[in-house]
Amino acid sequence: MKAVIYRGARNIAVEEVPDPSIKAPTDAIVRITTTNICGSDLHMYEGRTSVEEGKILGHENMGIVEEVGPGVDRIQVGDRVSVPFNIACGTCRNCVDGWTSFCLRTNPTEGMDGAAYGYANMGPYSGGQAEYLRVPYADFNLLELPSGTEHEQDFTTLSDVFPTGWHGTELAGMQPADRVAVFGAGPVGLLAAHSALIRGASEVFVVDKEADRLALAGKIGATPVDFGQGDPVEQIMDNTGGRGADCGVEAVGYQAHDPAGQEHPELVLDNLAQCVRTTGGIGVVGVYMPQDPGAATDQAKEGRIPFQYGQFFTKGQRMGTGQCPVKRYNRQLRDLIITGRATPSFLVSHELPLDQAVDAYDKFDRRVDGYTKILLHPGG
Amino acid sequence: MKAVIYRGARNIAVEEVPDPSIKAPTDAIVRITTTNICGSDLHMYEGRTSVEEGKILGHENMGIVEEVGPGVDRIQVGDRVSVPFNIACGTCRNCVDGWTSFCLRTNPTEGMDGAAYGYANMGPYSGGQAEYLRVPYADFNLLELPSGTEHEQDFTTLSDVFPTGWHGTELAGMQPADRVAVFGAGPVGLLAAHSALIRGASEVFVVDKEADRLALAGKIGATPVDFGQGDPVEQIMDNTGGRGADCGVEAVGYQAHDPAGQEHPELVLDNLAQCVRTTGGIGVVGVYMPQDPGAATDQAKEGRIPFQYGQFFTKGQRMGTGQCPVKRYNRQLRDLIITGRATPSFLVSHELPLDQAVDAYDKFDRRVDGYTKILLHPGG
Amino acid sequence: MKAVIYRGARNIAVEEVPDPSIKAPTDAIVRITTTNICGSDLHMYEGRTSVEEGKILGHENMGIVEEVGPGVDRIQVGDRVSVPFNIACGTCRNCVDGWTSFCLRTNPTEGMDGAAYGYANMGPYSGGQAEYLRVPYADFNLLELPSGTEHEQDFTTLSDVFPTGWHGTELAGMQPADRVAVFGAGPVGLLAAHSALIRGASEVFVVDKEADRLALAGKIGATPVDFGQGDPVEQIMDNTGGRGADCGVEAVGYQAHDPAGQEHPELVLDNLAQCVRTTGGIGVVGVYMPQDPGAATDQAKEGRIPFQYGQFFTKGQRMGTGQCPVKRYNRQLRDLIITGRATPSFLVSHELPLDQAVDAYDKFDRRVDGYTKILLHPGG
Amino acid sequence: MKAVIYRGARNIAVEEVPDPSIKAPTDAIVRITTTNICGSDLHMYEGRTSVEEGKILGHENMGIVEEVGPGVDRIQVGDRVSVPFNIACGTCRNCVDGWTSFCLRTNPTEGMDGAAYGYANMGPYSGGQAEYLRVPYADFNLLELPSGTEHEQDFTTLSDVFPTGWHGTELAGMQPADRVAVFGAGPVGLLAAHSALIRGASEVFVVDKEADRLALAGKIGATPVDFGQGDPVEQIMDNTGGRGADCGVEAVGYQAHDPAGQEHPELVLDNLAQCVRTTGGIGVVGVYMPQDPGAATDQAKEGRIPFQYGQFFTKGQRMGTGQCPVKRYNRQLRDLIITGRATPSFLVSHELPLDQAVDAYDKFDRRVDGYTKILLHPGG
Repeated sequence: MKAVIYRGARNIAVEEVPDPSIKAPTDAIVRITTTNICGSDLHMYEGRTSVEEGKILGHENMGIVEEVGPGVDRIQVGDRVSVPFNIACGTCRNCVDGWTSFCLRTNPTEGMDGAAYGYANMGPYSGGQAEYLRVPYADFNLLELPSGTEHEQDFTTLSDVFPTGWHGTELAGMQPADRVAVFGAGPVGLLAAHSALIRGASEVFVVDKEADRLALAGKIGATPVDFGQGDPVEQIMDNTGGRGADCGVEAVGYQAHDPAGQEHPELVLDNLAQCVRTTGGIGVVGVYMPQDPGAATDQAKEGRIPFQYGQFFTKGQRMGTGQCPVKRYNRQLRDLIITGRATPSFLVSHELPLDQAVDAYDKFDRRVDGYTKILLHPGG
Repeated sequence: MKAVIYRGARNIAVEEVPDPSIKAPTDAIVRITTTNICGSDLHMYEGRTSVEEGKILGHENMGIVEEVGPGVDRIQVGDRVSVPFNIACGTCRNCVDGWTSFCLRTNPTEGMDGAAYGYANMGPYSGGQAEYLRVPYADFNLLELPSGTEHEQDFTTLSDVFPTGWHGTELAGMQPADRVAVFGAGPVGLLAAHSALIRGASEVFVVDKEADRLALAGKIGATPVDFGQGDPVEQIMDNTGGRGADCGVEAVGYQAHDPAGQEHPELVLDNLAQCVRTTGGIGVVGVYMPQDPGAATDQAKEGRIPFQYGQFFTKGQRMGTGQCPVKRYNRQLRDLIITGRATPSFLVSHELPLDQAVDAYDKFDRRVDGYTKILLHPGG
Repeated sequence: MKAVIYRGARNIAVEEVPDPSIKAPTDAIVRITTTNICGSDLHMYEGRTSVEEGKILGHENMGIVEEVGPGVDRIQVGDRVSVPFNIACGTCRNCVDGWTSFCLRTNPTEGMDGAAYGYANMGPYSGGQAEYLRVPYADFNLLELPSGTEHEQDFTTLSDVFPTGWHGTELAGMQPADRVAVFGAGPVGLLAAHSALIRGASEVFVVDKEADRLALAGKIGATPVDFGQGDPVEQIMDNTGGRGADCGVEAVGYQAHDPAGQEHPELVLDNLAQCVRTTGGIGVVGVYMPQDPGAATDQAKEGRIPFQYGQFFTKGQRMGTGQCPVKRYNRQLRDLIITGRATPSFLVSHELPLDQAVDAYDKFDRRVDGYTKILLHPGG
Repeated sequence: MKAVIYRGARNIAVEEVPDPSIKAPTDAIVRITTTNICGSDLHMYEGRTSVEEGKILGHENMGIVEEVGPGVDRIQVGDRVSVPFNIACGTCRNCVDGWTSFCLRTNPTEGMDGAAYGYANMGPYSGGQAEYLRVPYADFNLLELPSGTEHEQDFTTLSDVFPTGWHGTELAGMQPADRVAVFGAGPVGLLAAHSALIRGASEVFVVDKEADRLALAGKIGATPVDFGQGDPVEQIMDNTGGRGADCGVEAVGYQAHDPAGQEHPELVLDNLAQCVRTTGGIGVVGVYMPQDPGAATDQAKEGRIPFQYGQFFTKGQRMGTGQCPVKRYNRQLRDLIITGRATPSFLVSHELPLDQAVDAYDKFDRRVDGYTKILLHPGG
């Protein structure tokens, strides 16, 4: 089959590789109909991770079940499914508690809980930017979708970005009627805003400096805040009568940068501690690394982020963090899509055949204007 | 009346001052029977705050209602009461939501939500290390106790340290059967451990290096961990089969120090991120300051604490922080004392007349052995 | 002033009575701008309660603060306010826990917790279908509104029906993406449906048999289910692929009747136990009486409702019940109105001067077509 | 192997039957070391169910894993395990949500969610009162125990009665410091009381009329209430200063009877609605049947229970019901046993070889004094 292979920094290729096969009785093979390029794929693409050469990339996958092992009795061949990016065993303590993003059994990497497809440090699993994908513990991991091709653009967000955005609002402890500050208008931030509005937010502020992304935020009913035009904290305080937001979502991560483009890993956390009111919650889904050898400061190299913790404490704020357990939300989000109450496809900018992955990665990496979210179709 | 007055760094005096009087219809005057010296009183005593000279100290107060204003119709003269350290209006959004520690109306200090008796930056309120205390919004703030003198040593912990310890377990998201790591074996840490055991913890680790405090931890059923004898994280990992604690409580604050006695404000947060398992919660009731001019580093001076945030995020941990809203817990803790299920008085080391406050502060400040918790009785 | 006075069964009058005055330091007097007739006012109107002759009716009130007592320091003269129907002290255990509908202090009636304006068994308080209203514990009870007259039709629902509808979804344990079955398309049922949609329901079914009410349900995005056209349980099962609703709201009460018009107090509870899936929740805001002398059966006379409890248990369902603590929700709902995300005024059918109350009650009681919700304006 | 076989009303036999074998890749075979007789086994024994002749009884099982299918990769041969009475697939919506007692896939019986071993209407599964037991979805269902034989008497309660008692407190919404009323002092009621005390109840009342059971209640720190000596509601009201219990647990079921021994299925629900305070919760783990052909009244035959619903509503109470999802609690309860904080073995009265099952059922059925909880050991 054809697959997108990592060959080194800014070097990927679409190559012919062997088809995957059932390895355990609980496996399934999925024929991929749509697989997306994720912002976090660029971490590997840019060579800032230790991902092994030859790895098939891609963790945002959906398709049709092609084959199942003899221990699979819920999912059936022919089912249309979404594949959560987390690979979870379904039977360890964390999985049973709904924390599939921290599965204790599927990732053999020392000191790491949680596995994923085609990703650095997340276990020896091939990704789905390919014609076929092997899915472990298929009965547990796969989400059934209505058969056919309807909502393909919406459903493809169910494997990662839509649940991750929703998780941001959950970690923030968002309640109906809250005023919510979302930092970052990439796919995750925009879908956090979409989620907050679906869940009954009074108002959602989305902070970024890219005009096209801010325009999308406005289009879905959020209030764009351009941090290139002035301090975002001040803008949010002004818009809330000085009270601040009720809660906030961090959808930027350790590569946060100021309007001049300089990296300040503590910047967004500072802003959130400042603009969220006393007792408010902060949900962090933007990624922070325990080690980051390429960072600017010695502290940041060991994952130390010197944000204004004293203010955070004095305001009695709360914070939840970490990768999204997709399975906790994807059934519900699927149902909201089916009844027309969620339309996450608003952020899809490109649909391309798998063959054009090399060019797509290049343009996405260079932030070519309008490349918000790229969908690849291995079937053409 | 007589009262403990702040006169400058390490300079307090027991002086004669005017009795307090009803200023608003919703006030009450309480005759103090017991008032405690708190570890945080030492921050002021040592001259590290901006507390104004002449202030009456003391925020851990209980006594008998002597007089009520015409707008008080629940509490009655003669009632025995506990006075929460927070002064709360009872009608602002935060009070109504149960966050009396962040009352929006009682503290006129710019940028500060929440007021307290006899405390720096917490509003213009006299403390209760005195014969009488004025209590605003008495119907809302005062907790009724059974009449008489029974349980006085236990009930006196209801104004601050017992609820604050309990709040630590609540902020940590503690669940029954959890293994809980408590850092700090001062009164708050010990009562966090007591709280965790009352709430059904499987096991509670208490980390400190003072032998007398560790002995108290053992006495109440917790497992003492002496960080003078080795890395506390390793000790906890070893005691939990390598899994770590389910959640943790920070009861130390920004003055955390290593076994050699050097201040490392990030030390305890690092330890908690390391020894609490993935998806676990951390409750922070040890105090961190937004500004700390006396701190060792420029970062710490502006309240920046460079702990291992990348690890915290990668493990998907959660954190809750801030001063305790005493009223959320004090009725329940009172009832546990009455039925004999809680006995927080185990930590009381001294009972003295108010007259001996100067000597008591001095010895407590110098950590004279065995001075764990001092109760002052203005009535002698 | 002029006020609507209860004179006996189906006998009310608009009469001149003395103006109310401040009785306690914590009172306020509100000049009523809008006061609504509630479906539950008809219980008294029809003579099925023990309400005392001469009582001023009306518990859905809003207006402008005219005067405050000396113990009121938050609310100010001139404030535009919504008055929750519950009269709550703000300092008893239930009020502190957010259960203002079960205040332990304001209702002197033996065995009853919770008070209200102008209502049978709910304490000796005059109602607000009048020019002025005395409000006890004004700082706690009154909700501030933006000054002016904007959103008057929306804000007037904040005193009862909108929070009560929202409470139904809360008692049902509704979660985003749920399919929700609401029984009853009166104001409370319609606003429960509106609430569910605001909170992210996938789909909301509204069961009734009145065409005009079902049309309103459809207009706000719900799916009307006409129980005159067939078994509502079957209709809901068919619409959910046989799985049933995720949760349900009871907004009918003990006067539930079958399509032929016969009273069956167990009917709606039976339907909910049948159409809500295993483990689902049921929120009951329709009223059931502990005694109902006018009921058809001996059991119903003592408040016994023989619904299919065995099915309820076997399906592992949950149920929450009771009058709404308005204050728990009204701030949030106000904010949703201000930002345009909630528009409860869709159900207002008539706006009349207070003078026309007699005719309005008569037509509302006879269910004259189109009389959904009547607003009275004492100022004309 | 030998097994306890149902042969008809009050007719069981220990017979030789074929050993069970692996049928699906996800199965395991467990060699039973301890299996208990449950009060609900008597429903079948007494002939009040439709259980098929020839069925092996027993759903409270523990033992050693003897064999696993090729799709089992977590549990290993030789593991000591507790077997939850629920048979759950681990991948349906209810299982994923933690409701293993309502598994949507394992019970083929029309209209029933949830399966169990050796039980009427709960699917075609053999019980464990035998030498060996087949366990479907073994990786999901089995709970690992420390190897050896320690705590066998405690661990054997993990399959049903201890989690079920705990579930009662959970369904009641019990909070630390609550006063809890438990109706029924059978194994489930006694373990509900034990659970409440472990979770920090201020006081627990246990209502029954059997002296030996009430004595056990007292022994574990609860307050016995003998309903043979007077109205239990009055006794509880008197003991709580007239306020009532904060929450209650129903551990009796539809066979509730008055002191004279007459069956009144609504009796315990009435008592709970009366003695639990306004806004309090009620957890129902005593069984109520959707149909009960042997019941005294026509209503009860169709599962209608005419309790005082009007009072329940007027007091704003909540109620949770249904069979316990054992897996939600058994890991935690195991850990509490290991650290010595829970000792459910206090209720074990007899340990017998499997051979003596016939006599044991007979005596247990006749409530021979002291037969509280019988453990059978197939290994002798």
